[in-house]
Amino acid sequence: MTANRQIVLAARPTDKVGVEHFRLVEMAVPALGVGEVRVRQHYLSLDPYMRGRLNEGRSYAQPQALGAVMTGEAVGEVEESQDPAFQKGDFVIGRGGWQTHFVVDARALRKIDGRTLPIRAYLGPVGMPGVTAWYGLGHILNPKAGETLVVSAASGAVGSVVGQLARQMGARVVGIAGGPVKCAYVRDELGFDACVDHKSPSFPEDLAAAAPRGVDALFENVGGDPFAQSLRRINDFGRVAICGLIASYEGSPTIIPDMRLVLTRRVRIEGFIVSDHLPLWPRALGELAAHVAAGRIRYRETIREGLENAPQAFVDLLRGGNFGKMLVKLI
Amino acid sequence: MTANRQIVLAARPTDKVGVEHFRLVEMAVPALGVGEVRVRQHYLSLDPYMRGRLNEGRSYAQPQALGAVMTGEAVGEVEESQDPAFQKGDFVIGRGGWQTHFVVDARALRKIDGRTLPIRAYLGPVGMPGVTAWYGLGHILNPKAGETLVVSAASGAVGSVVGQLARQMGARVVGIAGGPVKCAYVRDELGFDACVDHKSPSFPEDLAAAAPRGVDALFENVGGDPFAQSLRRINDFGRVAICGLIASYEGSPTIIPDMRLVLTRRVRIEGFIVSDHLPLWPRALGELAAHVAAGRIRYRETIREGLENAPQAFVDLLRGGNFGKMLVKLI
Repeated sequence: MTANRQIVLAARPTDKVGVEHFRLVEMAVPALGVGEVRVRQHYLSLDPYMRGRLNEGRSYAQPQALGAVMTGEAVGEVEESQDPAFQKGDFVIGRGGWQTHFVVDARALRKIDGRTLPIRAYLGPVGMPGVTAWYGLGHILNPKAGETLVVSAASGAVGSVVGQLARQMGARVVGIAGGPVKCAYVRDELGFDACVDHKSPSFPEDLAAAAPRGVDALFENVGGDPFAQSLRRINDFGRVAICGLIASYEGSPTIIPDMRLVLTRRVRIEGFIVSDHLPLWPRALGELAAHVAAGRIRYRETIREGLENAPQAFVDLLRGGNFGKMLVKLI
Repeated sequence: MTANRQIVLAARPTDKVGVEHFRLVEMAVPALGVGEVRVRQHYLSLDPYMRGRLNEGRSYAQPQALGAVMTGEAVGEVEESQDPAFQKGDFVIGRGGWQTHFVVDARALRKIDGRTLPIRAYLGPVGMPGVTAWYGLGHILNPKAGETLVVSAASGAVGSVVGQLARQMGARVVGIAGGPVKCAYVRDELGFDACVDHKSPSFPEDLAAAAPRGVDALFENVGGDPFAQSLRRINDFGRVAICGLIASYEGSPTIIPDMRLVLTRRVRIEGFIVSDHLPLWPRALGELAAHVAAGRIRYRETIREGLENAPQAFVDLLRGGNFGKMLVKLI
């Protein structure tokens, strides 16, 4: 019998998460029931939202159970199927979690096309991060041609798609990223109009110079001081999509220091979670797949090798140690 | 020749505004040119937004000029007209400012019906404050039947209309007001489901008890700690209309202490200013006039006597010394 390896949550972090909060366990892969499928997982997606689930208490997701396999999306290949809709060798995506094998009701899986695009793309620009960008941009920010859009974590899985889609809409796109290497990539490879390094001491001035006509739309993935700086430059009738606040997940809360700005500039601020909008996913995924296949959306990945390295990869993701979509290769 | 009396801005307040920042001046009423009308003003409206205009610098309105008559809405009666559209004796509303007489291009005036409603109503529930309530409620908050709406400054010119309209929409309406007398009026006369006194030491618990299923819609007129307490209780997909932040106009800024709440509960926060939406005013005013005439919207006024008392009335307004719409009687 094949062994399944899993990473489970061993302890809840009280402050910063570390590898010590996780544990690798090994067990037999369970036998298949009728209607079930066994997936050999190839790539596991690591995403910032997972940090919130490690805490107890109110969040938009149920907390991760202690001692249970870490949840998350993964892509893989069907090894065995007790459901007529799936055949051995089919590529699939599902919420397989941090483990090498996944036995699940077939209805919880979706087939993916491994010929046109690499299957990893379904965890990135043609997956949850891509739809997140598509939704926040098209349904909250709606930048008009000539408007200035700012997006943080600009080289990341979500931010990179936000900026490239916004450029297609005719916006002036300013990225915020950590360090000159990421910024050069955002400008030169992704084609943003500008990118500002939030680690630079001249960040506020650099942002002002990159957005000389102010900010009409802000796609916020990070929070913290760069958020406050971007918000300070918001224009009348500006829109702010709160997609992520990774700087706050383990640090100081992100605040709005003076709501008068929201009033006098008639700002709209909206928090959103892409899983609230499942009916829109098929349309979004179709558009995103076409953009990626045609090279209109480019993306980058950081791929770590081996399930046992998933905890360190996750810790690194929260500290900005990734460059593009963070994945763990399991096979 | 009739003398015109004016209150002008004598000095910009650096902190709290006082009567010493204003000066009463007297001058001849100018002669009428073709197309002009002279109005003998009856009632002057005092509104919190005027505080922002006393400051220099960026706001949604132009700053009030030093030495110039204080601007603001007033209702009055045509004394003389050089325009065929207006006759002596017509009741009108216009931006006549803090003065007894007003000479203006006839196109800047609007006739009002002084028979169905008292002309003062056009400065309150059938005027800018009423339309403000109507717009924020119907175009930002959209409470559904059974949802809980919280509105601050609940006995005031805007808040009182917000709550009564929201009750008509089937919402559970919780007011916030300063002191037991105002709260009793809000509950017993305006028919809100509950009213909570923000001056009480048990305010947070009282608010929780009054909104046991949380807050779906928040109409914010005040800011400060009551705002933070209301926001803490916001439900998933809650809406927040930022209409005024009177607590911040002369005090500490109103903050959002942790944006994670906006993200995890998918909150939408929107600042608005009713003068951005002039095309909607005729419809709003028609509906509001019908509600007031039928007794479905009740309201209360604080009327101070004499132009010379306008500065003190304005100072009192900012400290919550009014009870309902603050007006100055000029005749």
